[in-house]
Amino acid sequence: MNEFQLIKRFFQQPNLAFSNAYLRQGIGDDCATFNIPSEYDLHLSLDTLVEGVHFPFHANPFDIATRSIAVSISDLAAMAAVPIGFTLGITLPSKDEAWLKHFSDGLAQAAQFYQCPLIGGDTTKGPSLVISLQVHGITKAGEGLKRSGAHVGDKVYVSSNLGDGAGALPLVLKEPRLNTGLAEEFYKPIAQIEFSQKIKDHATSCLDVSDGLIQDLNHICTASNVGMNINPDLIPLSQLLVETYGSEQALKYALTGGDDYQLAYTAKHCDHGICIGEVIAGGRVNVLGVDIIEGGFQHF
Amino acid sequence: MNEFQLIKRFFQQPNLAFSNAYLRQGIGDDCATFNIPSEYDLHLSLDTLVEGVHFPFHANPFDIATRSIAVSISDLAAMAAVPIGFTLGITLPSKDEAWLKHFSDGLAQAAQFYQCPLIGGDTTKGPSLVISLQVHGITKAGEGLKRSGAHVGDKVYVSSNLGDGAGALPLVLKEPRLNTGLAEEFYKPIAQIEFSQKIKDHATSCLDVSDGLIQDLNHICTASNVGMNINPDLIPLSQLLVETYGSEQALKYALTGGDDYQLAYTAKHCDHGICIGEVIAGGRVNVLGVDIIEGGFQHF
Repeated sequence: MNEFQLIKRFFQQPNLAFSNAYLRQGIGDDCATFNIPSEYDLHLSLDTLVEGVHFPFHANPFDIATRSIAVSISDLAAMAAVPIGFTLGITLPSKDEAWLKHFSDGLAQAAQFYQCPLIGGDTTKGPSLVISLQVHGITKAGEGLKRSGAHVGDKVYVSSNLGDGAGALPLVLKEPRLNTGLAEEFYKPIAQIEFSQKIKDHATSCLDVSDGLIQDLNHICTASNVGMNINPDLIPLSQLLVETYGSEQALKYALTGGDDYQLAYTAKHCDHGICIGEVIAGGRVNVLGVDIIEGGFQHF
Repeated sequence: MNEFQLIKRFFQQPNLAFSNAYLRQGIGDDCATFNIPSEYDLHLSLDTLVEGVHFPFHANPFDIATRSIAVSISDLAAMAAVPIGFTLGITLPSKDEAWLKHFSDGLAQAAQFYQCPLIGGDTTKGPSLVISLQVHGITKAGEGLKRSGAHVGDKVYVSSNLGDGAGALPLVLKEPRLNTGLAEEFYKPIAQIEFSQKIKDHATSCLDVSDGLIQDLNHICTASNVGMNINPDLIPLSQLLVETYGSEQALKYALTGGDDYQLAYTAKHCDHGICIGEVIAGGRVNVLGVDIIEGGFQHF
């Protein structure tokens, strides 16, 4: 099985490499081709996931696929963009057909869920498993949510529970194929595409919480030149997280852990999501009653 | 130096992360954003280059960068698209600042040469050096060159000398930092963006010769449902290649070696490039007077 046969067999499936109104051409030529009406902006984001770094060795290939797509599409949710396609660069140590079958099944399930087809990519051999995914999505022109629009007086919101991803990490590191309970939050986070459509007309700034709440909110503070007061008692924590780790460690995961893929955003007022604080003058995030906690997930 | 500082220092340079008419937002938010008028198509291609597979261990980081961009942009040339930006996913074993400086200098030189800015990406740590680049380019809507338009009676052309890339490979494998003479063709191939603009109104099909002439022409044959007669005496070979390897081996490199990044295309008639044969009925490439030579560069 050469590269072309591999692509045809595993990646060019109708439930994975399907078409849509913007795609002129998908897999099969030197480039994939979009035509997007001028009244839309095209948003794109490239994420790389390395085995042993972003997911454990020996993880289930189906789960690796769903996680890879979700964490990438989460960046589209942060812009309130609707997915229209993704490309995949995958470096594989070997051509394990069973592995590829499960991996492409996971891709297909996620592609269907987000209505985001595989449109092109590259398959290469290398010493370790590395997955690069670029996702593409659209918003009305000029309406993508940015990090830079927060104003003093806005409130700070998150879309749902935080900390589950970080709480799941020790579990999947211990047992890479565990994918139920908290571990499901690690392998199958739901990128908040639907939620982002509800808040897009209200939010003044937005991002996805991938590196830890404090670090990510600080990105909004820097880009918007504001500060924030966050009330830790308002931060939503899942019952499962609190039961597993106790409330103090659960809060720590929520504040500084990574891998949540929920949205954090500011708005004058919004009926959707959970209000956790307010935007103030000054350039940093303060968590009331909590000593300054630095950090978040650093890739190096 | 954390990931954000690394990106700012090495990748957010004005001569690398510059702007253009289509880019609304580059590095710095959850996504990069293009707005492209409806009368243009957006073409995109993702390539992955793995150390020890697509370039030798211990190669000069400047050369790795120029090669990575050129081989990726070559896919835009194959569509006759004009580059408008690229994303970079880089997985690094360590944060070697001298290495990163030379690598980003190479990126910047190539970005300037092709007027193709860095607009986003991801920097990760991993066991081996892996580079994924996605390039984006535009043509007038519906005018991108495809593999599927060749007709019986068309002539077959190539843009310039073939075989130099394959001839360079044994040299750079022996001496990874050699980047003059033939080795320059390996590290600094010129993606044929300018040339593609000259042929775009004449070519009926086109691709870039990255996996070996015969294998690549067979892609046109399959997509266009035609065959080809190629005259080996007409295939252009550089004097340097013939002097280094003799004419028989030089021709073998030209026919089956990879890494050329010249264009191969069909046209009723074209004043640009070198005519090497003609399109006939039937589904395969025949090289006249040469036994069937299978193959080309296979990634597995």
